[in-house]
Amino acid sequence: MAHFDPSTHPHRRFNPLTNEHILVSPHRTKRPWLGQMEPPQSSNLPQYDPKCYLCPGNIRSGGQTNPNYDNTFTFDNDFAALLPPPAPSPPVATHPLMTVEPVQGGCDVLIFHPRHDLTLARLKVEDIIRIIEEWTRIYVVRGSQEGIKYVQIFENKGAMMGCSNPHPHGQVWSLSALPTLPAMEMESLLKYSMSDQTESSAPRGFQGTFHRRPCLLCEYAHVETTMPEKPRVVLKNKDWVALVPWWAVWPFEILLLPYKRHIRSLCDLTATEKTSFADILSKVTKRYDNLFSCSFAYSMGLHQRPVPSSPGEETVEDEDVAHLHLHFTPPLLRDASVRKFLVGFELMAEAQRDLTPEQAAEKLRACSEVHYLDHID
Amino acid sequence: MAHFDPSTHPHRRFNPLTNEHILVSPHRTKRPWLGQMEPPQSSNLPQYDPKCYLCPGNIRSGGQTNPNYDNTFTFDNDFAALLPPPAPSPPVATHPLMTVEPVQGGCDVLIFHPRHDLTLARLKVEDIIRIIEEWTRIYVVRGSQEGIKYVQIFENKGAMMGCSNPHPHGQVWSLSALPTLPAMEMESLLKYSMSDQTESSAPRGFQGTFHRRPCLLCEYAHVETTMPEKPRVVLKNKDWVALVPWWAVWPFEILLLPYKRHIRSLCDLTATEKTSFADILSKVTKRYDNLFSCSFAYSMGLHQRPVPSSPGEETVEDEDVAHLHLHFTPPLLRDASVRKFLVGFELMAEAQRDLTPEQAAEKLRACSEVHYLDHID
Ligand SMILES: O=P(O)(O)O[C@H]1O[C@H](CO)[C@@H](O)[C@H](O)[C@H]1O
Ligand SMILES: O=P(O)(O)O[C@H]1O[C@H](CO)[C@@H](O)[C@H](O)[C@H]1O
Repeated sequence: MAHFDPSTHPHRRFNPLTNEHILVSPHRTKRPWLGQMEPPQSSNLPQYDPKCYLCPGNIRSGGQTNPNYDNTFTFDNDFAALLPPPAPSPPVATHPLMTVEPVQGGCDVLIFHPRHDLTLARLKVEDIIRIIEEWTRIYVVRGSQEGIKYVQIFENKGAMMGCSNPHPHGQVWSLSALPTLPAMEMESLLKYSMSDQTESSAPRGFQGTFHRRPCLLCEYAHVETTMPEKPRVVLKNKDWVALVPWWAVWPFEILLLPYKRHIRSLCDLTATEKTSFADILSKVTKRYDNLFSCSFAYSMGLHQRPVPSSPGEETVEDEDVAHLHLHFTPPLLRDASVRKFLVGFELMAEAQRDLTPEQAAEKLRACSEVHYLDHID
Repeated sequence: MAHFDPSTHPHRRFNPLTNEHILVSPHRTKRPWLGQMEPPQSSNLPQYDPKCYLCPGNIRSGGQTNPNYDNTFTFDNDFAALLPPPAPSPPVATHPLMTVEPVQGGCDVLIFHPRHDLTLARLKVEDIIRIIEEWTRIYVVRGSQEGIKYVQIFENKGAMMGCSNPHPHGQVWSLSALPTLPAMEMESLLKYSMSDQTESSAPRGFQGTFHRRPCLLCEYAHVETTMPEKPRVVLKNKDWVALVPWWAVWPFEILLLPYKRHIRSLCDLTATEKTSFADILSKVTKRYDNLFSCSFAYSMGLHQRPVPSSPGEETVEDEDVAHLHLHFTPPLLRDASVRKFLVGFELMAEAQRDLTPEQAAEKLRACSEVHYLDHID
């Protein structure tokens, strides 16, 4: 019988962060696509758009006027999905299968830069450092508010990913509950941290050296960055690695994380780690845009310690098992107009992908780190 | 403080089938939508399209010619995500965080009807009965094949849901593993079946009467259909109920299930239950089309006993806790061109919805069961 070839034979991989399987069907990339084509993701935007409600000096849909901000600008979402306390308590559930719990919080919109046309891929590294500083500030401020249990930083980029304004911006939703996915990840990290890794027959990583307990993500990043061949690594710098994870669902999904030491949250980053973070964010997003010569759509989200550790906190808490990381989930599959639909089987049964993570990483490795529009200028 | 109003105050609900939370932010429906508009979902298709690879007598992309079929027609997917055995075994995992397992199976395409323009919403009930018969046949045939652990029946309808051909058809993917979501549901059903419901303080349902063990879905359907007001029920007939579940994620999500007795799979259905199944499928899909006067896009999937019980099997097995049900996950939110994007917060943190399940059910209850195109004819 033939030798197993992961780029030919269907197989299933396992995501140890979410405990979910992924069906990999690499031979499917050969099929012709007769379905929906995505409209062009234009990169040709004006520097200032008088009709944009995020540009400096313009009026927002809520009626307020934006200041003439110089770098980032954060404001309360005019249509927030979470509202501040006090909120009335829901009644006791009428049936154990129909439970309801109150939730409170706040939603911030973070404009990345005054320029309407400059996405992360086109901003200077020093501008990205300002965004990281602003993420850190919001994480600390929101995370210290009474009752807040989780601060979710994310960006929806591109109309295809539900973004309603191309002016580069992200969001932060902070809430009084630990949401489903971060809760699942925290549980996996905690379980791993309590397991006795020395008993396993696996090659030993370096976890334990920088942290009192074994860390799943320290270990994973270590293994990926120290293998003889590094088939899933897209790029790394002195502190960070961007890779297509073994268990990637989206075609060009990326997991971006610090690999040198256990970093729980934005608050743990040194000044040089912030600079190298900005550097890798810039390079990853440039490669993304260059992959299909378009403004590459994605959702991006940051997972870290649910809220900052309180000052003076001495003991290692369960929440310290968190390891700062970012997920990029971009939908495009073959070119700027053909996306992967996660529907049908994926919604009803399990995630499925058409090219291997190793093939995706190889394509991203082949991309330039000079933005394709900068060649034209 | 104000009284709690689920259609005003953000809250979280819990899905006992998947153990996931849903953030409900009903006040969000008020926000203006400036994002992507969906192209019209035309219902004006020809009865026969010479270029369609699913129409009778036409040539498929794989080169085969379709017969001149009269009702349903099933064939092996020309670009199957799962391949039949034998397949070479993957090597032993090099690291416990990077595991791989082999998977085998087959993918069927099921054309619903020779007419290119007749979706479930426009087919006669007797034609839908034929589809149910065909689902049953495939479930039995595939489910009896060596090594098959799960038979997933589903339909992607509409370009918006990744469907590449408007000729009405569904798919069946059968595989040698229990996929992530059905596995999760089975686990929840099993756990519930072993819990001692008599100890709970909840109002008592009828579970236990028709089945040896308590069934989460029997109980849930019973409670929803016997409440004084039935805020989430869209419609029911003598055997089946269609409701917007307490824990719905998609704006007009529907859970469709038999509520009179515990039915494990398509194989358990009596002839009259098949007829009433076809009847409710017809009515649900007509209401969907009428909601926004368009051919309503969705993914639909059937969950049941992973494979049929083998003949002569006497003991109640763990798999008998399965209760046949269908999920409909349609993306449209406000009208035929504005969809809900499950991105950003939803991908990184947890599901979020903008209108309550009760509001969605009310809108679907207000829809006619005469298809809007039949008014025109
Ligand atoms: O098999 P099809 O219809 O070509 O493809 C469609 O359904 C599949 C199963 O849900 C998905 O994996 C694809 O992304 C989708 O486009
Ligand atoms: O808040 P926005 O950008 O208007 O809305 C976008 O992001 C939200 C958070 O991920 C989603 O719930 C919306 O569906 C999406 O359109």
